[in-house]
Amino acid sequence: MADNEMNQQLANLIQRVEDLEGKVAEDHLTLGVMKGDLDYTIAAFIIALGAAAYDMKVDMFFTFWATAALRDPKKKAKKGFLDTMFGWMLPRGTMKLPLSKMQMCGIGPKMIRSVMKLHKVQSLEELMAEAGKMGVRIHVCTMSMDVMGIKKEELIDYPHMDYVGVGTFVGMFDRAKQCWFM
Amino acid sequence: MADNEMNQQLANLIQRVEDLEGKVAEDHLTLGVMKGDLDYTIAAFIIALGAAAYDMKVDMFFTFWATAALRDPKKKAKKGFLDTMFGWMLPRGTMKLPLSKMQMCGIGPKMIRSVMKLHKVQSLEELMAEAGKMGVRIHVCTMSMDVMGIKKEELIDYPHMDYVGVGTFVGMFDRAKQCWFM
Amino acid sequence: MADNEMNQQLANLIQRVEDLEGKVAEDHLTLGVMKGDLDYTIAAFIIALGAAAYDMKVDMFFTFWATAALRDPKKKAKKGFLDTMFGWMLPRGTMKLPLSKMQMCGIGPKMIRSVMKLHKVQSLEELMAEAGKMGVRIHVCTMSMDVMGIKKEELIDYPHMDYVGVGTFVGMFDRAKQCWFM
Repeated sequence: MADNEMNQQLANLIQRVEDLEGKVAEDHLTLGVMKGDLDYTIAAFIIALGAAAYDMKVDMFFTFWATAALRDPKKKAKKGFLDTMFGWMLPRGTMKLPLSKMQMCGIGPKMIRSVMKLHKVQSLEELMAEAGKMGVRIHVCTMSMDVMGIKKEELIDYPHMDYVGVGTFVGMFDRAKQCWFM
Repeated sequence: MADNEMNQQLANLIQRVEDLEGKVAEDHLTLGVMKGDLDYTIAAFIIALGAAAYDMKVDMFFTFWATAALRDPKKKAKKGFLDTMFGWMLPRGTMKLPLSKMQMCGIGPKMIRSVMKLHKVQSLEELMAEAGKMGVRIHVCTMSMDVMGIKKEELIDYPHMDYVGVGTFVGMFDRAKQCWFM
Repeated sequence: MADNEMNQQLANLIQRVEDLEGKVAEDHLTLGVMKGDLDYTIAAFIIALGAAAYDMKVDMFFTFWATAALRDPKKKAKKGFLDTMFGWMLPRGTMKLPLSKMQMCGIGPKMIRSVMKLHKVQSLEELMAEAGKMGVRIHVCTMSMDVMGIKKEELIDYPHMDYVGVGTFVGMFDRAKQCWFM
């Protein structure tokens, strides 16, 4: 092969490798959290922490029912009639989350919590505190907050929390290694 | 390095880059939609539209309960006894979809719909119409249609809809950037 | 370009391609199975088998409620009081799994099973046996087993089953093409 030709092939190859580098997934996990039950929220944080321990960047997008899990029972917000009504019906923070199964009028969640304690599994509240320390970011879906009538003032203090639209979420998972919706 | 050796290295590298190009994920989102509740179906279409707005190719695979969301209440199909029975029990189109939570004998879905309207969020029906315009494709699982006794004749008119098996779905998500099951 | 420079560019490019090869997703599907309802467990195995038929490596991670689907009704395990209590409440194997919808006091699962048989769709038990033959691996979450009080001695005989922590699961999906949580 002539030097000239090799130069061209090399330049062409550099371009193709650059394109590939721009397309390959980043070390990044995004979790869409929608269900907002105790068991699913625990699962989401256990996986988030597992991935963070592997040095993956982790972004959680809280939407629909799951936004109610971020309410702080000690905080109040001024609301209109419809929002207040929704506020009554939605769980006020993690301690009120139902189980997706075996709810049994509230006995189920207490049983799971006590068995988890017995087996020295961290509680949801401890998992969330650790997620904050590990740099796991929580993005709250603004549209869901509007629909559910949930205000920023009533949400928990979390070190890496912001309020975003669906577009931001799509941008986030675009190059993430994995993105789940649970 | 001798020219000869460089030639060989270059040829070898071109092969490796070609292999990589065949493996890297495409700008493509596939959504497996199974649950068929109002809230989950809305979420699926909001994400589909968000991804389509980012110029991602979007394929939705409707399976199990979700196939009932594609029924058109104005259309009828001839069915055997068992299929007719299933047909009665499954929701007849989007307006009859239950919520996954706070169903409250049908009040929940109406509340969510009216709050969404209040906040100028598009209704599920509007989202679906827009998805059709944006080129989002809907693939209906033929096995689910068989099991649920749902016939092609009773499904909505959607510009990009076809009927496929699980194998086609696996082929679709094989190189998709993300694939969720909701 | 001088030979010297070309040599350097080539060496640099080889390094970049090596990096990319280490990052690109493998032909591998991981499924997080959590829900443990009849319909979701069937869906998980149908997809697992579909992917295996495409020569994908398939790993299933059974966690939370889904671990109960792996119980063998003919096997017994010695348990403490709390574990025995949980054991009563959780389904004892696949034949006892509820549907996520239309449970109707146990009529729903029987209807689905008979309709599936009618349409010559494999039963869950047949799907699982085939998954075993196709080399689909099942990993059972040890933390869930602890919390639910489920013992190894009471689980089904499956050719490729082991017991792992969440860390192992994160390591598994790290380079998987797709990973779902259902």
